[in-house]
Amino acid sequence: MKKLIVQKYGGSSVATVEKINIVAEKVLSYKKKKYGLVVVVSAMGDTTDELIELANRINPSPEKREMDMLLATGEQVSAALLAMCIQSKGSRALSLVGYQVGILTDDFHTTAKIQKIEAQRIQKELKSGKVVIVAGFQGMNKDSDITTLGRGGSDLSAVALAVALDADECQIYTDVEGVYTADPRIVPDARKLEQITFDEMLEMASRGAQVMQTRAVEVAKKFNLPLYVASTFSKKRGTMIMDESQVIEKPVVRGVTLTEKEAKVTLRDVPDEPGIAARIFKSLGENNINVDMIVQNVGHDKATDISFTVEKSEVKKTVKVIKEVASVIDAEDVLADEDVAKISVVGVGMRSQSGIAFNTFQALAEQKINIEMITTSEISISCVVRKTDGKKALLALHKKFDLQKK
Amino acid sequence: MKKLIVQKYGGSSVATVEKINIVAEKVLSYKKKKYGLVVVVSAMGDTTDELIELANRINPSPEKREMDMLLATGEQVSAALLAMCIQSKGSRALSLVGYQVGILTDDFHTTAKIQKIEAQRIQKELKSGKVVIVAGFQGMNKDSDITTLGRGGSDLSAVALAVALDADECQIYTDVEGVYTADPRIVPDARKLEQITFDEMLEMASRGAQVMQTRAVEVAKKFNLPLYVASTFSKKRGTMIMDESQVIEKPVVRGVTLTEKEAKVTLRDVPDEPGIAARIFKSLGENNINVDMIVQNVGHDKATDISFTVEKSEVKKTVKVIKEVASVIDAEDVLADEDVAKISVVGVGMRSQSGIAFNTFQALAEQKINIEMITTSEISISCVVRKTDGKKALLALHKKFDLQKK
Repeated sequence: MKKLIVQKYGGSSVATVEKINIVAEKVLSYKKKKYGLVVVVSAMGDTTDELIELANRINPSPEKREMDMLLATGEQVSAALLAMCIQSKGSRALSLVGYQVGILTDDFHTTAKIQKIEAQRIQKELKSGKVVIVAGFQGMNKDSDITTLGRGGSDLSAVALAVALDADECQIYTDVEGVYTADPRIVPDARKLEQITFDEMLEMASRGAQVMQTRAVEVAKKFNLPLYVASTFSKKRGTMIMDESQVIEKPVVRGVTLTEKEAKVTLRDVPDEPGIAARIFKSLGENNINVDMIVQNVGHDKATDISFTVEKSEVKKTVKVIKEVASVIDAEDVLADEDVAKISVVGVGMRSQSGIAFNTFQALAEQKINIEMITTSEISISCVVRKTDGKKALLALHKKFDLQKK
Repeated sequence: MKKLIVQKYGGSSVATVEKINIVAEKVLSYKKKKYGLVVVVSAMGDTTDELIELANRINPSPEKREMDMLLATGEQVSAALLAMCIQSKGSRALSLVGYQVGILTDDFHTTAKIQKIEAQRIQKELKSGKVVIVAGFQGMNKDSDITTLGRGGSDLSAVALAVALDADECQIYTDVEGVYTADPRIVPDARKLEQITFDEMLEMASRGAQVMQTRAVEVAKKFNLPLYVASTFSKKRGTMIMDESQVIEKPVVRGVTLTEKEAKVTLRDVPDEPGIAARIFKSLGENNINVDMIVQNVGHDKATDISFTVEKSEVKKTVKVIKEVASVIDAEDVLADEDVAKISVVGVGMRSQSGIAFNTFQALAEQKINIEMITTSEISISCVVRKTDGKKALLALHKKFDLQKK
């Protein structure tokens, strides 16, 4: 074994028998170079969505433990099929599911976190010369129950395995050719990036770019594991996600993103006292609700408004939780607005460059787009706008920061 | 917990969301009586066949280990869905797959045998008041790999669990109302039996009646566990399968069966010497080929013919194995004939009754049906005939032994 490579193929890459065949060929092209190979796969095509729909027809709010039991089958099927496909081409392969891989997680079904990987089985199979196919997205908690790692969890499986196995490379194959300056479906002249830093990728992923799961990038960053993102079905060079020090090109703005998946929740006339914000977000945390942007402005008349964004699917639950808090802390009103879009400008160069905020707001003003919320981080600026303005805003920002193909 | 009941629902009983709903109601009608409930389920409808077809499109002869990995998902899906369905009706339930149930098997993938059941997890969940839903058909070998128990294996899961848990009852729910004197699809006036002995059920199952898996009945017999076979969707009384001493009605012939699933293989001009038959069937056994009828007649000119039947799906493999043996033992020729049917007459009363053989042959002769092979056991007579004569033979025998509805 010259080198150990962990590869991950997403759902669209294994959606059909024909595509599984192409994936097998791709895997074997690396195998021929005497590389050790661990291949993580997602469920075929829309399998996960179909299973969720089936479950919802039976029980609109099933226990998450059962949901994990159900959804984990999707990856098990594609792992077994890919192993069979590789065998049909004369190579040795075997598939492993979460409990066999030794991916041990906490108890948070449907959004479990990996605690430890006991990789002896994989190591044994690699040593014997087999390609090891791993059902992504899943693990096992201390009670031997099946857990899943959340949407896009197969990315996390791949990254965590690459770290645990001390792999030389981690390759994420998907249906896009890499990371772009903006979503090419919306911005036709978006440019593919050769390199991007972990931090930029994190900002872009959490701000709407759907290339990779955020948590997977976080783990890769933590262990400084470079990720290569490329297309399963193309030989074009993809994008390297790596530590800032290794990235050569350092533009001010790396890309712009748009997401319509979040809703804005506002808590009106909150008493302007210490500890109030903590109280609100403690309740949300206890209910496992992920909050993205949070905005609180200076108060007036000893009261203030607090706004934040959550995934649209969490709005109902959020409003319920927040209403309870509101009655305790004596806040006036809770408003939820799903008709919003969030656009973000991302780039590590922003740290040392002034004028990015100005240019962002100016670009939106030129299009007569009203800004409803603003947050900034060291390497990003995000604005919430009307949903109908989202795409127009994205195009304007992409142009303003000269991100188009040269 | 007044009583512990193990129930099994077949694939047609959980084929759709609506049917799963009916199964859940049936389970809960027992739960209301304060019974402890372990519910074994098969894969939804034709899922297993669809998965096999998918696998075959990828690899015509996939490794059996991967086949088990693939097929086991079918039961995992229906177990999770049934648990969700019961939860939606306000009761507590959880699903468990093979490795969680502690069903430990040998290494024979796709036809694994149960070696031990470590039922602590089920017992814990039952004690906490949950309905325990078990994914049937599957277990785990000593390497933690998923194994499956062969076609109809969910019956075996149910029976083995009932034995391991010392259950008070084992109920097998299916799409037929019980065991009949003959297949009602072929013999319209076939009669449903209220009782049948283990031995009769074994003969009938292995001779073509598809009500229950043979191995499951064998295990039930070994542990004297009465089985109740009935329809999921009807309230009509089903059939009890039980020890001979408990069966009240003792007719001479209990039923007649037909199978078109077997092929006849003949080894011509085998040297008529000691040890030859042993040699032939040792090779078949080593290749995991199940032989049903075996016929050897008295020899002539120091040579004899040996014929036997195997599942049609095994014919190719069988001929290959037998040709190798033939060349070693200097036999003349190997013939395979898939165009045959096997009809059988079954009943414990045959032991003490003469004339059954005569009546069987007479009934066939009256229809001008030629008999190609005959074997008998203490409680059955089987004949191989042309495939085109099978149904006619079954009808004639059913009538001859007065098995029709009174």
